[in-house]
Amino acid sequence: MDSKNNDPHGLKSLSFIEEIKSIVVIGPSEKRNFFFLRNHLENFKGKVYAVHPYIKQIKGFDDGNQGKIFKSVNDIPEAIDFAFIAVPAHKVPPVIEECVEKGVKLASIFAAGFSDAGTEEGRVLERVLLAKAQGKIRLLGPNGLGLFYPRLGIAWRPKFPTIAGNIGFIAQSGGICNLAVYSGIELGIYFSKVFSFGNGADLDFVDILYYLTHDPETDIILCYLEGIKERRVDTLKRVLSQNKKPIVVLKGGKSIVGATAAKTHTGSISGNDKIWNALFKQYNLIEVDSLEQLLFTARLIDFYGISKYENLAIFSISGGYGVILVDLLEKYGMKVPQFSDEVKMNIKENLFVKGTSPNNPLDVAAQLFYSDSIVKIIDLALSDKKMDALVLDIPCWYFHPDFSILRDEKLEKNLIKAFNLGHVYSKPLIPIIQRANCPEHRERISHLLTEKKVPIFGDPLEFIPLLPKISNSLIRRESSKKNN
Amino acid sequence: MDSKNNDPHGLKSLSFIEEIKSIVVIGPSEKRNFFFLRNHLENFKGKVYAVHPYIKQIKGFDDGNQGKIFKSVNDIPEAIDFAFIAVPAHKVPPVIEECVEKGVKLASIFAAGFSDAGTEEGRVLERVLLAKAQGKIRLLGPNGLGLFYPRLGIAWRPKFPTIAGNIGFIAQSGGICNLAVYSGIELGIYFSKVFSFGNGADLDFVDILYYLTHDPETDIILCYLEGIKERRVDTLKRVLSQNKKPIVVLKGGKSIVGATAAKTHTGSISGNDKIWNALFKQYNLIEVDSLEQLLFTARLIDFYGISKYENLAIFSISGGYGVILVDLLEKYGMKVPQFSDEVKMNIKENLFVKGTSPNNPLDVAAQLFYSDSIVKIIDLALSDKKMDALVLDIPCWYFHPDFSILRDEKLEKNLIKAFNLGHVYSKPLIPIIQRANCPEHRERISHLLTEKKVPIFGDPLEFIPLLPKISNSLIRRESSKKNN
Repeated sequence: MDSKNNDPHGLKSLSFIEEIKSIVVIGPSEKRNFFFLRNHLENFKGKVYAVHPYIKQIKGFDDGNQGKIFKSVNDIPEAIDFAFIAVPAHKVPPVIEECVEKGVKLASIFAAGFSDAGTEEGRVLERVLLAKAQGKIRLLGPNGLGLFYPRLGIAWRPKFPTIAGNIGFIAQSGGICNLAVYSGIELGIYFSKVFSFGNGADLDFVDILYYLTHDPETDIILCYLEGIKERRVDTLKRVLSQNKKPIVVLKGGKSIVGATAAKTHTGSISGNDKIWNALFKQYNLIEVDSLEQLLFTARLIDFYGISKYENLAIFSISGGYGVILVDLLEKYGMKVPQFSDEVKMNIKENLFVKGTSPNNPLDVAAQLFYSDSIVKIIDLALSDKKMDALVLDIPCWYFHPDFSILRDEKLEKNLIKAFNLGHVYSKPLIPIIQRANCPEHRERISHLLTEKKVPIFGDPLEFIPLLPKISNSLIRRESSKKNN
Repeated sequence: MDSKNNDPHGLKSLSFIEEIKSIVVIGPSEKRNFFFLRNHLENFKGKVYAVHPYIKQIKGFDDGNQGKIFKSVNDIPEAIDFAFIAVPAHKVPPVIEECVEKGVKLASIFAAGFSDAGTEEGRVLERVLLAKAQGKIRLLGPNGLGLFYPRLGIAWRPKFPTIAGNIGFIAQSGGICNLAVYSGIELGIYFSKVFSFGNGADLDFVDILYYLTHDPETDIILCYLEGIKERRVDTLKRVLSQNKKPIVVLKGGKSIVGATAAKTHTGSISGNDKIWNALFKQYNLIEVDSLEQLLFTARLIDFYGISKYENLAIFSISGGYGVILVDLLEKYGMKVPQFSDEVKMNIKENLFVKGTSPNNPLDVAAQLFYSDSIVKIIDLALSDKKMDALVLDIPCWYFHPDFSILRDEKLEKNLIKAFNLGHVYSKPLIPIIQRANCPEHRERISHLLTEKKVPIFGDPLEFIPLLPKISNSLIRRESSKKNN
């Protein structure tokens, strides 16, 4: 590969990664029990080799001297597409030189101690690295964990999921990627590709974003970003102006101390906050404040698309909790209007226990154990044309048999059925199942709902602040369509 | 009891509840499997009776005709202190009349359909109820669940904890109380007394607050409040002006639609938002936005007192997550300053793996599996005089043996030891253990830490917005001391 394959605006081509057929792990550490080698072996469907100066045998990998461990990458008899380089910083440049000779297409460099070190020595080492690469090999890192690509089974950590999803993730920080991938399993969101690009010496945020905006395997793009080089801002704008996919961004280093920490972390210049705020607005990016919000937003978009959240129905197991939900939704700019007269009348017909209310917020605790009626009521609430979505709350103990007031064998089955009605109406239905005294039952229900792509939450503040962000991005999207 | 025992400002005396020795449940429902009777039986240390017009035997309660079920409360041969009344609304006034005759001290009225119904009929029924009570019996409700008093074993729901804590809770909504009590078990916070006072026809928010501000069993007061009667505002101010305990308030019905919903719920007038905001400020109340925030705030105060959160140290398992934490703390008005030169030098001596940083935020992922050093580093960070508290993050998979990079048998023990150092230094140490792929291990660690009164969280936004609320209430507390 040479620079001729690249975009005229200096954007590097990356689509070759879809064809990675062989991996070498260079410098697997015996002290770390060959962690990175074992991880890249776990699910990769192609060939895996190791390069080590003196180790000749690794249990479970090359016990029988099968010829998978070599002293140099150039000794490997086959072509190598991807090298994961785990040698110390100062040994990286000669290794890259060998990889170029061998024709390796992509190298992921784990070692820190380059521009991230904040020293002249580190900066020089990074320049030497790039000189050795000569643009003939694409680099992820240094100070990064590289590529997680579930369709091909490429992973740097144990038990990363083998399910390929539609979410692309770009992060400077490897630790953030680990959290995203492992948390994603619980949340029911899966990734197409995850890039931990560290210092971004070669492949940087802009290159990878450009790739993901055109990647047919990716529908939603998540970013954890500490900063980009100033000379890349115009190219970033170009990439963003052509993008059609939802992009959710967690910008690290927005505060002054945060920016200093980001510099220590990946050598990034976080840049002027105003510039970033303008970019977020101009290019319809969804900005969030925490990794958890990043993942929760991805889940809402993945399960329900870029939805409108203007008028919401509330179904509450407690009158008080319903009042709090109204206050929170209104605080974040949404409305909780009344149902249409017809819907209200129909709901009223299905409410036959005292202490319930057919108004929005629906207060139905007293009738919960007549669960057939609950399904009907939720169905009716969603059928109201005015309502964009429905939020409901039910504490986890309702899924524990010991806490029942009445015996209703169908309760759980009916609730799950009712919770799925959002998909029937193509309207988001978001259940809050509070984390109270039955964690094991909550866990069980969480898995049942997650499988059906119903996004359960434990706390309204986990998602309510995110709804207007999603909704506003829809409005901007539609108004930009009109203008075009 | 008569009105002579009451405060000259119309505050009703409540301390007699500490001596409740006998309970009657009036109108236990067979259809609901005698739910409220069974619950009041579960842990109460005194005598429990039932009143029912025709049922003569209740399995597990009076199988052998032991004389615990009576047709009227007046037929019971012993004195009755507390009546839980579960009859329909229109039957409540005659029952109250009988209770007055019997000399019952406190009655809890479950039925809705009084002033909460929003009808003239309902309002009249509530007036009739008060007339029958003649101020000779104190009432909780109607439309409430009454009293949870763990020291005496009084509880309206199954498996409410038998541990008596130091947190008093006043709520109009019974559902909110249920959530608070059951969630409290997981959070490791326990209640002295919980009052679900519904419409507050007799005992209202102000009476109960007055009682709790003087109750030696209560150190922290939590309130879920939809509104109070206008004529009680001055008395409320008097109660608040004499109060010395931390009071945390979740005010329901702050939005217009929320206020309407509150009116449907408990017949409350939410009142002018400005009046409430002035009260919160003037009387140093801590205001929160959700039930979860109410409980989290209580936990932080219970475990660490009203602490200062101005300068925070961060210990992060991922450089990126550390940057996000800095941004969040600064966003909410706190500072993340550098350690003193001495502390920094000492931390540096204990950091021996590349890719770590002795700056604040501490980035120590690379060294985690040398856990003896981790204990030392956290100890040093807390020893810095400048630091008021320490926030740390570590994903749950570090407590799962399958995900270890290195074998460090002491890792878990050392981390638990390190997490406890906040108590050693009397400085809050708040661990975020992210909810990722090992819920069962997270649950295990959560219990271990909760027992040691270390408040673990799963998401930084669960607690970071609460820290300045606690801290500011300390500042106001101290400045008001100086002014006195």
